Amino acid sequence: MWQDLGPVGRAASSGGYFRQPFDSAERECHAWFLQECAARGLEVEADGNGNTVGWWRAPGVAEQPGNAVLTGSHLDSVLDGGAYDGPLGVVSSFAAIDVLRDRGFVPSRPIGVGAFVEEEGSRFGLACLGSRLMTGATTPEQAQELRDRNGVPLLDAMAAAGLEPSLGSSALLNGVGVFVELHVEQGRDLVDRGAAIGVASEIWPHGRFRFDFTGEANHAGTTRMEDRHDPMLTYAMTALAANKQARLSGERATFGRIEAVPNGTNAVPSRVTAWLDARCATDASLERMLAEIEGLGQERAGRDGTSLSVTAESVSRAVGFDADLARRLAVDHTGGDWPIIATQAGHDAGVLSAAGIPTAMLFVRNPTGISHSPAESAEIADCLVGVEALADTLERLAE
Amino acid sequence: MWQDLGPVGRAASSGGYFRQPFDSAERECHAWFLQECAARGLEVEADGNGNTVGWWRAPGVAEQPGNAVLTGSHLDSVLDGGAYDGPLGVVSSFAAIDVLRDRGFVPSRPIGVGAFVEEEGSRFGLACLGSRLMTGATTPEQAQELRDRNGVPLLDAMAAAGLEPSLGSSALLNGVGVFVELHVEQGRDLVDRGAAIGVASEIWPHGRFRFDFTGEANHAGTTRMEDRHDPMLTYAMTALAANKQARLSGERATFGRIEAVPNGTNAVPSRVTAWLDARCATDASLERMLAEIEGLGQERAGRDGTSLSVTAESVSRAVGFDADLARRLAVDHTGGDWPIIATQAGHDAGVLSAAGIPTAMLFVRNPTGISHSPAESAEIADCLVGVEALADTLERLAE
Repeated sequence: MWQDLGPVGRAASSGGYFRQPFDSAERECHAWFLQECAARGLEVEADGNGNTVGWWRAPGVAEQPGNAVLTGSHLDSVLDGGAYDGPLGVVSSFAAIDVLRDRGFVPSRPIGVGAFVEEEGSRFGLACLGSRLMTGATTPEQAQELRDRNGVPLLDAMAAAGLEPSLGSSALLNGVGVFVELHVEQGRDLVDRGAAIGVASEIWPHGRFRFDFTGEANHAGTTRMEDRHDPMLTYAMTALAANKQARLSGERATFGRIEAVPNGTNAVPSRVTAWLDARCATDASLERMLAEIEGLGQERAGRDGTSLSVTAESVSRAVGFDADLARRLAVDHTGGDWPIIATQAGHDAGVLSAAGIPTAMLFVRNPTGISHSPAESAEIADCLVGVEALADTLERLAE
Repeated sequence: MWQDLGPVGRAASSGGYFRQPFDSAERECHAWFLQECAARGLEVEADGNGNTVGWWRAPGVAEQPGNAVLTGSHLDSVLDGGAYDGPLGVVSSFAAIDVLRDRGFVPSRPIGVGAFVEEEGSRFGLACLGSRLMTGATTPEQAQELRDRNGVPLLDAMAAAGLEPSLGSSALLNGVGVFVELHVEQGRDLVDRGAAIGVASEIWPHGRFRFDFTGEANHAGTTRMEDRHDPMLTYAMTALAANKQARLSGERATFGRIEAVPNGTNAVPSRVTAWLDARCATDASLERMLAEIEGLGQERAGRDGTSLSVTAESVSRAVGFDADLARRLAVDHTGGDWPIIATQAGHDAGVLSAAGIPTAMLFVRNPTGISHSPAESAEIADCLVGVEALADTLERLAE
């Protein structure tokens, strides 16, 4: 399966993947998904949001509300992303079904392999769009306003891909009583712990804050340094302060996006806007870190004669996964005693958990710790342990 | 005259001017220029680069190589610029001719009022394009490669404005033996000295350097701070170091333009590119300041695990104006004892001086010290002193 997907949407220059929702590469991945379902006799159901599930229903298994076990992940990538983020969970789900069938296991509940659409938000800017629509976390009205970088609305993009969109809560989740998502780890926690597999405890709170630094445009040659009100300096000090605060607390603070106005080589800027991505262990520590960074920025603004205003563009509270389920997954299979670890990245599993579905995640060790980059990686041996762990999990949940 | 030009190309929102070469606002200024020439009986000559001169030739004045006295400035503005940068020199030139005629002065040499095209480089990116073409500092082949932000080539833009371009050295300068440009001051030197007028000694050396900071793209949530190679941090420290070095030496260093890749809120950047604008009192001190800033950047890059490479995109050596001429202008008119000061901004006068034409500049005090901004200003009283000073200068040079 991995060899089939390998070349799809891969850029020759960087080796990175470009699989944006409803484009040709992502649709090719989706066609592959349908083939794999057909090869295993899974019954395919799709919703009007672009999400798809292939169901393994053993003969005579009763269809009851809340008795289905769902696994799977997503097939889309960030721009210039890695091979594993998303597809590893889908491939491992199919492989786990193969393992269970080899074991002669006959599930007494339906087992579904899901592929959620636009998990990365790389085209329409809203991460976990598919799972958010199906759970109602995002309304159809909100989604209809979304446009990609070329101004193409979501519904038009779906129609251009041959879909018949019908946005909103979908029946796909009606029977689902539990969801398990396997994912490549996006940090180095498992590398440091020497563990091939980890089980998720929670997703850290996550905030995106816009910092607007305002100063006074002026001539870069003739204006004496002491006469300037240069917002770039206030920004630079704030970016260094954010890094320091996050290092001190063992949390995360990043300024990765910046826009200067007028952005001319020979002009002191009138304005610099930069976005802080902050992720902390608790909601309280997120608020505290933001306050510290803003405070240091304001202090510098006072010295530079500039001003700083901070706007929260999105704040996601902590998501705690089902603790009982996590404990059972971590200890209850052959040879495993997997650590239970927090993650700082958003996932469809977080959206389903927030919607009240008992949810768990399995992480596969990533030797580089790098993600959202062509350098993302996983060892084959660890991936095979992941498949076994997922198979064990599904077997226990669907007994 | 000032009232005629006031509304042309002015944005209602900011009060700033948008007079880019060959666009409608700049052409309206050019039409005004022709009207003012006609009203004074000046003979208009244009070259194929878009530069224009109106000549005052008294009856019987012999046309001899090198006997003409040229003044004037430019009519284009930076994006969202002030009212005075350029037009003050052109308006004052016409007014000075009116003063001389009121005095009954009959010049024994031709006196020309020039309007140079694209002094700011705001459309085609190369400052002093008109004077550079007419002196041969820029070749027609180089100029033909220039395109504006919309991809329009220089020649097409000129043709669209109804011109018949013929780029290259022009006969307009053949008879010119001396050039005097009046300009609004772009700093606060004259404010601090309490002088209405200053005379230019030199233009400081000026370099534009591209700083490429390269790191490693990664996930802004899951990547621990200590595992990152974040080029934004290296940039931020370098920007603060540049400011500090320039403050210490009393010179200028500005990072006003920046581009991050991929410039995503949730991604540690793989690359940050920023441009340093540096202006120093001497060529040696420019080199020294660049070396100090680059050294501090390299030191931080070592700590961040990033790399820094610096590319000189343009370096202009110091331009010394005619020292005898400056001394004569500063002392030799009624009531004036004007300071001789350096400027950190480029001017057409610098290009003509570098081409071997004895050249001088007069600056008019700017109360705000702000330039390249709608807040640029000059007092009417100071402007009138400027006209008198320019008239005195032309009278002495054309006797």
